[in-house]
Amino acid sequence: MINPFFINNGPFKVSDILQLINLDDLKIDNDQKITDIKDLLTSKKNDITFFHSKKYEYLAKNTKASFCITTENLKNELPKNCKPLIVKNVLVSTSKITSKFYPSSINDDFDHTVRDIIETKYKDDVKFGRNVLIGDNVTIGSNCLIGHNTIIEQNVSIGNNCSIGSNVIIRNTLIDNNVNVLDNCVIGKHGFGFFPINEKNLRYPHIGIVIIGENSEIGCGCTIDRGSMSNTVIGKNTFLDNQIHIAHNVKIGENSIIAGQVGIAGSSILGKNVRIGGQAGISGHLTIGNNVEIAGGSGVIKNIPDNSKVMGYPAKNIRDFLKDNK
Amino acid sequence: MINPFFINNGPFKVSDILQLINLDDLKIDNDQKITDIKDLLTSKKNDITFFHSKKYEYLAKNTKASFCITTENLKNELPKNCKPLIVKNVLVSTSKITSKFYPSSINDDFDHTVRDIIETKYKDDVKFGRNVLIGDNVTIGSNCLIGHNTIIEQNVSIGNNCSIGSNVIIRNTLIDNNVNVLDNCVIGKHGFGFFPINEKNLRYPHIGIVIIGENSEIGCGCTIDRGSMSNTVIGKNTFLDNQIHIAHNVKIGENSIIAGQVGIAGSSILGKNVRIGGQAGISGHLTIGNNVEIAGGSGVIKNIPDNSKVMGYPAKNIRDFLKDNK
Amino acid sequence: MINPFFINNGPFKVSDILQLINLDDLKIDNDQKITDIKDLLTSKKNDITFFHSKKYEYLAKNTKASFCITTENLKNELPKNCKPLIVKNVLVSTSKITSKFYPSSINDDFDHTVRDIIETKYKDDVKFGRNVLIGDNVTIGSNCLIGHNTIIEQNVSIGNNCSIGSNVIIRNTLIDNNVNVLDNCVIGKHGFGFFPINEKNLRYPHIGIVIIGENSEIGCGCTIDRGSMSNTVIGKNTFLDNQIHIAHNVKIGENSIIAGQVGIAGSSILGKNVRIGGQAGISGHLTIGNNVEIAGGSGVIKNIPDNSKVMGYPAKNIRDFLKDNK
Repeated sequence: MINPFFINNGPFKVSDILQLINLDDLKIDNDQKITDIKDLLTSKKNDITFFHSKKYEYLAKNTKASFCITTENLKNELPKNCKPLIVKNVLVSTSKITSKFYPSSINDDFDHTVRDIIETKYKDDVKFGRNVLIGDNVTIGSNCLIGHNTIIEQNVSIGNNCSIGSNVIIRNTLIDNNVNVLDNCVIGKHGFGFFPINEKNLRYPHIGIVIIGENSEIGCGCTIDRGSMSNTVIGKNTFLDNQIHIAHNVKIGENSIIAGQVGIAGSSILGKNVRIGGQAGISGHLTIGNNVEIAGGSGVIKNIPDNSKVMGYPAKNIRDFLKDNK
Repeated sequence: MINPFFINNGPFKVSDILQLINLDDLKIDNDQKITDIKDLLTSKKNDITFFHSKKYEYLAKNTKASFCITTENLKNELPKNCKPLIVKNVLVSTSKITSKFYPSSINDDFDHTVRDIIETKYKDDVKFGRNVLIGDNVTIGSNCLIGHNTIIEQNVSIGNNCSIGSNVIIRNTLIDNNVNVLDNCVIGKHGFGFFPINEKNLRYPHIGIVIIGENSEIGCGCTIDRGSMSNTVIGKNTFLDNQIHIAHNVKIGENSIIAGQVGIAGSSILGKNVRIGGQAGISGHLTIGNNVEIAGGSGVIKNIPDNSKVMGYPAKNIRDFLKDNK
Repeated sequence: MINPFFINNGPFKVSDILQLINLDDLKIDNDQKITDIKDLLTSKKNDITFFHSKKYEYLAKNTKASFCITTENLKNELPKNCKPLIVKNVLVSTSKITSKFYPSSINDDFDHTVRDIIETKYKDDVKFGRNVLIGDNVTIGSNCLIGHNTIIEQNVSIGNNCSIGSNVIIRNTLIDNNVNVLDNCVIGKHGFGFFPINEKNLRYPHIGIVIIGENSEIGCGCTIDRGSMSNTVIGKNTFLDNQIHIAHNVKIGENSIIAGQVGIAGSSILGKNVRIGGQAGISGHLTIGNNVEIAGGSGVIKNIPDNSKVMGYPAKNIRDFLKDNK
């Protein structure tokens, strides 16, 4: 996972971490430091990781992490180098620890670091409108345009020859060359992710970013949320029409065409050359193959293999749908 | 109905009111004054009310109002203290009179009372972005953030610890503590309510407000319309994802979770702990019980009892839907 | 087609046009000039036109154009005055030539011609908010209001007594008298039209405009795209609720009512007195008759005759739908 943006506030002492997840009583060398929190695959010595489902058993057996948040049932899968920390709810505990390492990834308050573009080095390189604001840690390539009232918040990299419209808000996003982002888009805000708790839900961190490939276009009024523990990706030469919502961790392949008002729920992965008609919806955590066509208004609730054409709610083979609905 | 905002331009002479609804010929003591227009239940002596459907018969029998706009068929249900005013279309006549009492409630022209926040008393208490505008009759609690280009128009009260994003527009709204309103929302505008008339529709007044409970979150690009003769309410700790539309008079209970692009039509009432998947739609004037789950993409066109799980269009029991659509 | 806005960069020499579509070898008097590109019906002597489908045969036989982009199969339908130019893909070639005549119609970069309204002649006539920007070639009638941060980009004409909200962006649009455009709308941007090509799609020009009839209302957060080779039209006294998307070339008749989150795909034509419930979708290139009612959430995929009431996906007679879904 590419994440050039969020700053790790660690390392932290083990005792600080244990306290956070109510394991204060645990007998561990409390002077040891934990460097980072990562997934089972990418974590290293002195990192903490998490393991909450049997389906990640293989990854768990080989993790390099020194600590792992997990459950009584799963702990025996971990290797000797990895000390299990047994909790009731693995994801809630992981969320609390991630928030400690990456506190800026939870909320998306407005960016107070911004300055008017005329006070920045971009005033000569970029063609810009009125009231354009640029946050810390922003880079903008050559030959770009940025429209009126647009806010490029912290942690954005824009390639060459990009045209950003007016009233746009972007943060935590990598944009490649020749990308158009039309008016009123909001890109890179945290996704709709939290643990429901009566009285006060617990937001979880979003340390992912948004990546938009070259030659893409994002229509007016779209919202593209950044990922939680992964990135949200729009493939190159993929065009989005107006008023589309792309949730956290979604990945869309290259050369895809998505019509107006489509919504794609969290963590779904779409192949390349996908075509989606207006107002179609795709549920979360699905895999949609290459060259798939989804008719307008469809509701997709299961995986779709390569080269399929589907329609309806729930979406099924388009011929069957049309035959059944003559 | 809580309505701290709209100013009653009354009282008016009976004769002025009668002229408005083409009842000039009626023989009434024309020097009498009418104080306010209210519903059957809350109106008092010297108020005018309206009664347009048999189902409000019980309320009509007990109204304290001095006058009631109604029809020939319904007038005999009214008590002696209440003088019936017989009209062809009760709601159109009610609308005309309400517009006279509350003229500012019909249109939603931009708020010309706003000043830059740096010219207001909030410049020291609030952490704010560039170009933030604050209208008349606004109060903001402690420890709040307001993002760039956001317009807090007239008649807004914001509690403590709230984070309002950028490019947000709010009017006629009460926001409780610890509420997040993300970028590009428009909250408190008049609903989509009018009487269709060829050549020129007749807009009706919206004297309700929007109330948002504590610990709630409103996602990017949402629109929440204020009520017409009632309020629009978002319960506490209820989270709305991006691009959601909540129409006038809708009430949503606490601890509810509503995913992206959902639309809820006017005057529907949802219980608490309701969960709604992305792109689902709920028709107007429905009652949705507590703990109801509505699958993404569903279209709800009738009331749903407590603890139900529904799916489809029209939405039905989720098991039946999935069985019928294997 | 009314198009007062886009400036024709022609005339061009025949040889320049031929080169653009890879017909350099063609033996034509290369000093001849081509004045404009138009459709079969409206083109005149020295214009170039295009003919890509048998269904336009009658128009082709009578065209006045001097040149016509077409195929081997269709060329014999053209009259003697019209020289056929044979290409592989008529629409791609037409797009390339139109782009040459109307280069400003392809992309919608922010309008750098705008000035603050206080620097324009409208500062005395219009009641306006903060940070209102006005582009070149804009006219505004009497008694209009324009809200904060709104951008009236190039090529807009606004009638009398119009109320434009805040954060609105408009270009290439004619607005008649007494029209309300609510907050956060984007009107007049190019539609979602391009030829899909791997690596880099080819955008086609949008030389149409948006026309909004008198007494209409456009709700918050709507997007209305301008036409490609035709106009997008909202009839008089037609009301649109919030978050509606109207694609390029759509035409909606007068006195129509369209509820929240409806989407209408490109080139569909709706009659007058049409009523559409929330979240309904209409596919592209359809004809919807007068007095049609479409229930909320419906997906319309074929033409609908006058006076019909439809529901469902695909939408059918509402009685049949409700009977089938008891």
